[in-house]
Amino acid sequence: MRLRNKPWARDFMAEHPDVLLAEPEKLNNGWHTLFGNDHPIHIEVGTGMGQFIIGMALANPNVNYIGIEHFDNVIVSALEKAIEAGKPSNLRLFRANGVDLLKIFHKGEIDRVYLNFSDPWPKTRHEKRRLTHESFLKLYETVLVPGGEIHFKTDNRHLFEYSLVSMSAYGMRLKAVSLDLHAEMPEDNIMTEYEEKFSAKGQPIYRLESQYMNV
Amino acid sequence: MRLRNKPWARDFMAEHPDVLLAEPEKLNNGWHTLFGNDHPIHIEVGTGMGQFIIGMALANPNVNYIGIEHFDNVIVSALEKAIEAGKPSNLRLFRANGVDLLKIFHKGEIDRVYLNFSDPWPKTRHEKRRLTHESFLKLYETVLVPGGEIHFKTDNRHLFEYSLVSMSAYGMRLKAVSLDLHAEMPEDNIMTEYEEKFSAKGQPIYRLESQYMNV
Repeated sequence: MRLRNKPWARDFMAEHPDVLLAEPEKLNNGWHTLFGNDHPIHIEVGTGMGQFIIGMALANPNVNYIGIEHFDNVIVSALEKAIEAGKPSNLRLFRANGVDLLKIFHKGEIDRVYLNFSDPWPKTRHEKRRLTHESFLKLYETVLVPGGEIHFKTDNRHLFEYSLVSMSAYGMRLKAVSLDLHAEMPEDNIMTEYEEKFSAKGQPIYRLESQYMNV
Repeated sequence: MRLRNKPWARDFMAEHPDVLLAEPEKLNNGWHTLFGNDHPIHIEVGTGMGQFIIGMALANPNVNYIGIEHFDNVIVSALEKAIEAGKPSNLRLFRANGVDLLKIFHKGEIDRVYLNFSDPWPKTRHEKRRLTHESFLKLYETVLVPGGEIHFKTDNRHLFEYSLVSMSAYGMRLKAVSLDLHAEMPEDNIMTEYEEKFSAKGQPIYRLESQYMNV
């Protein structure tokens, strides 16, 4: 993601606290209280420009969605899209880094983690930054319900290979794998911005669903 | 595999009992006795025309290899190749069906199972015939040492997707995955006949190593 400088981003974000939150200390009562219902909560770590999470929120009104993104200059694009979409009541955006998940969520508070086209961090010395590294799998496990799931899509072959092995080594179970998602496109697939771009080039999109065995 | 009728196959096979065995009842003393050493035993289920298992036997003299193939008209090609290769002392071929593994091996007698370009059996009603179906994983587990491994290569995307999920559901752990083996060809990769043909067409070759967790 090339970051354009957007000096207006901070002010714009501050104007829409009903969609975009940035202060985890205000979440003491938990996300279910904030959403005002007991619907399951699905989060996307690294939500980028938001097309996926907003599309999911519109398609599934009985699920609450939270898109988490670290970069101001990126999350403002998601915020703009959320406003265009009429600020769905089951959607929130949160400006934070993935490593801060424990500050944002109570234990067992969420039902599913989505990872889409995460940064592959191809160099071995950056392995710990990959969102499917053991340390992140531990974080997700803590905030997920027992038996919670990760749904992961990417065009990056090496990251997908790495993730299969990393999740397996962690003791997770693969529930579904596609090595060319668009060859038999599921009807309910919501594409990310990257997914549209890479699949248009004919690159295969990899996808998996994996589950924690801590039930 | 298109099967040409080879009326001479049976006689030819009977002439080379030092390489090709077909009578499991003669194996009561076990394969280590037959090979005359305690080297690890690796088998290939569905060895086809034998290029892989013979190449492996020549490359790794300190491992014993057994290629198992059901069809006379196919295994004779492997036998011909084994004779051309000088009948390596660490190689045997065995004419049998995969379902008969328990008749051929003692419990825990072998150290690794190779599956290469196995029949994908694409129809759902044929799922049980796939060599990575739960019932076969159970067979391999029985004849393998605790913590034994399966090394699997295929060009068939659906069979590979199926196998990842099947092995994971069985409780096996993925140790390595490649979704384009020839993009970073390992130096020690021995190609099968199918692998040469399909990779020449530019199709990706999928590969995994998985391990039983029954240690």
